[in-house]
Amino acid sequence: MIDKRFTALEGLTNPDDYLICTYSYQTHQNPIRAAVELCKSRSTSGAGWGTSGTVAGENRAIVERYGAKLLHYDIVEAGDLPDMPPVAPKLQRNGYGKLWRASARIAIPVGNLGSSIALLLTAVAGEIHNLEPFISIKLVDVEFPIVYLERYAGPKFGATDVRKRLGAEIGRPLLIGAIKPSPAPTGLFAELAYQSLIGGLDMVKDDELLVDIDESPLVSRVRAVSDAAKRAADHLGRKVYYQANITADLDQLLRNHDLAVANGADLVMVNAMAVGLAGTRLLTQHSEVPVTSHFGMTACNAKVPFHGVSHKVWAKLQRLAGLDNVMVPAPGATQMEYSSDIADEIAVHQEPMGSIRPSQPLFGGGVKATNLGAILDAGGIREVGMIIGHGVYAHPAGALAGARSVVQAWEAYRDGIAARHYALSHPELRSAFDHFEKPPQEENREPHHRAS
Amino acid sequence: MIDKRFTALEGLTNPDDYLICTYSYQTHQNPIRAAVELCKSRSTSGAGWGTSGTVAGENRAIVERYGAKLLHYDIVEAGDLPDMPPVAPKLQRNGYGKLWRASARIAIPVGNLGSSIALLLTAVAGEIHNLEPFISIKLVDVEFPIVYLERYAGPKFGATDVRKRLGAEIGRPLLIGAIKPSPAPTGLFAELAYQSLIGGLDMVKDDELLVDIDESPLVSRVRAVSDAAKRAADHLGRKVYYQANITADLDQLLRNHDLAVANGADLVMVNAMAVGLAGTRLLTQHSEVPVTSHFGMTACNAKVPFHGVSHKVWAKLQRLAGLDNVMVPAPGATQMEYSSDIADEIAVHQEPMGSIRPSQPLFGGGVKATNLGAILDAGGIREVGMIIGHGVYAHPAGALAGARSVVQAWEAYRDGIAARHYALSHPELRSAFDHFEKPPQEENREPHHRAS
Repeated sequence: MIDKRFTALEGLTNPDDYLICTYSYQTHQNPIRAAVELCKSRSTSGAGWGTSGTVAGENRAIVERYGAKLLHYDIVEAGDLPDMPPVAPKLQRNGYGKLWRASARIAIPVGNLGSSIALLLTAVAGEIHNLEPFISIKLVDVEFPIVYLERYAGPKFGATDVRKRLGAEIGRPLLIGAIKPSPAPTGLFAELAYQSLIGGLDMVKDDELLVDIDESPLVSRVRAVSDAAKRAADHLGRKVYYQANITADLDQLLRNHDLAVANGADLVMVNAMAVGLAGTRLLTQHSEVPVTSHFGMTACNAKVPFHGVSHKVWAKLQRLAGLDNVMVPAPGATQMEYSSDIADEIAVHQEPMGSIRPSQPLFGGGVKATNLGAILDAGGIREVGMIIGHGVYAHPAGALAGARSVVQAWEAYRDGIAARHYALSHPELRSAFDHFEKPPQEENREPHHRAS
Repeated sequence: MIDKRFTALEGLTNPDDYLICTYSYQTHQNPIRAAVELCKSRSTSGAGWGTSGTVAGENRAIVERYGAKLLHYDIVEAGDLPDMPPVAPKLQRNGYGKLWRASARIAIPVGNLGSSIALLLTAVAGEIHNLEPFISIKLVDVEFPIVYLERYAGPKFGATDVRKRLGAEIGRPLLIGAIKPSPAPTGLFAELAYQSLIGGLDMVKDDELLVDIDESPLVSRVRAVSDAAKRAADHLGRKVYYQANITADLDQLLRNHDLAVANGADLVMVNAMAVGLAGTRLLTQHSEVPVTSHFGMTACNAKVPFHGVSHKVWAKLQRLAGLDNVMVPAPGATQMEYSSDIADEIAVHQEPMGSIRPSQPLFGGGVKATNLGAILDAGGIREVGMIIGHGVYAHPAGALAGARSVVQAWEAYRDGIAARHYALSHPELRSAFDHFEKPPQEENREPHHRAS
């Protein structure tokens, strides 16, 4: 029953010719045969559905060269509770019986793939969630041979150059303000930028939903905030920076980049997963400034433990796509992702990857002066960006004080002083604790049912 | 606790200014407050995490204009079994207690969105899977006001023009061969195209993994298959067609289109979800021929019943992106998706959507002569494409006979004759039944555990 042409259990003779994918899955069929069907589907497209038989002309030479190969599997019994309801009507009636949970390492020939993230995704994950043997399946990891990585330019700047450009010394985080309210009129928005920059932030940025709206057109906003950053720099005696959100479809994305950079933006941000990495790559190739990605839409593909494509894989593809900075949900304090996923992402952005430069993680989501130290501890990394929204712009004494509170929190952490102790002599940090760390009111969890 | 500025339970006074999103979710918090937090996050970015308090300057005018509004909710108790393990470490220790399952209709201002699928996705789904109140959440539907739809050109050809171009009479499916083996040398590949076209197919197509490989470079293949299609047309006395897969990243995608069309391709295919719809839209704007999307990567976002973005929503976005043909897993026979998802997709591609032309669904995945009628019945539509791979190219008597068997199956269905009866007088159809409908051997589901 198992087509041995699609296995290489003794190992590969030419490992440079293959990506290695790791899948975890639940199946009601023979779990080894299921993995071999996956190999066929993801390479010579010879899987077929049901008893399709053999395709004329799918000879040994074709399978040898273009066929995926099962390298290794681990299998355990998994009771009879499926991860998801059966898709097939027949199984909906009769149930599955005994189930297996398995992981498989599969080698996919890079000869199929050219240099395209879109085709790479199609090969490693395209139809896997539609294949009949799998009740559930997740692509857990992809490992690339160096020769394949050479097809990608990767980040044009990378973590090191970005930090150099922004004047960030080794061993400290960049402090970045995500200006709120996001859809504020340009004048107010630029004033909030100015206040937070003179309060001590390195950089301010647009939120992910703000690109070009009536109240805040892209060019006017970029001009106003860049001007605010220049005035702040004059005040401070050091440069400070602005990252503009240029997210758009591909008919407009490069034009937005050109407009933003021509009008003073120091970096650009794109909602990379919403655009698609195959399009984001064109932007990073084109860009004259570092490109940052927002994390929106990643969890849509990656969060479910038994389904989708892992955060680890997406992080690798984001480096292939050339992103210099990659936003990652802040670990520890206000958790928006599983700890193991965040740890994977942080590791992937820094790990060796041929000649592809490392990306810099930017932690975002609930970061404040009051948890900055805990987040740096949980992240296990100091050379990151810390993106602070409410912690600056909802500080009770305003954006300048909010920025100061964040700088003070960093000073305390750097010098090994407890932030609450440091707060005793630093009023902005103290009021951050007073305001943001109020004990939560007992919430009424019962909804009031009403016709609405 | 509930910020009433983000609700409009009595209805909207200006419905043309809003998209209406429907979410279903599971929460351990007050389910109404959770929906309001979603509104804040997806519009003015004022949600914050924990007790963030109020953002200075987020005044009534800004919220009125740019804030999302909760329109309606339905809530039921949902026991204490979470859909997924808790993300927050605190909850991992203590569990959730009582849970709610709810659906909410939320109005999101189109004033935030410009004309960008990427920004639309960011608004309606960007961070929803990271928000703290939601154990699980799925974007079920998006409804657009006509004024918003006018920002999109939609399909350049659409279902009607595509069918006219391909000479498909009203009331019959297009019969399309997905040539296998996919990575065959160009000569063999073109010969298989020729055989299946003279056997009666309307069109042949490349598989989703085949674009430009050593064995089958894009330009040589397009030339060879287009030439085969011309020779077949001479033989048949009617035109037949070829759809080339041009999937690539955006640095290469339009060039691939130009090469394919210049060398004779009649349609182009793109793995749209792997490229990203924001990039696919640039292709459809640029294309001189109809553009077809493959369904790979859609289920990755859409399959889990309680998580992600529904197939219904993706189908709507695919129309916005301008796809003329959209592959959909074939319903009924060899099910690769839940029936309700397939039904939603078929409906969305045809339903009124302002001035945006309908897309033509192409059913694929396990289609054969033996189940063609059942699939047409299950789909409830005849003006579709039927994509047949193994049913043609793994037919025991070869591709020509395979194509004939499919044509015969259509003739039987059209004339209301049982296919098995029609097979008695049509040998190609008969051998399709003999070959593809063999009773399955009893499979040994037990894996042989071995060190590997």
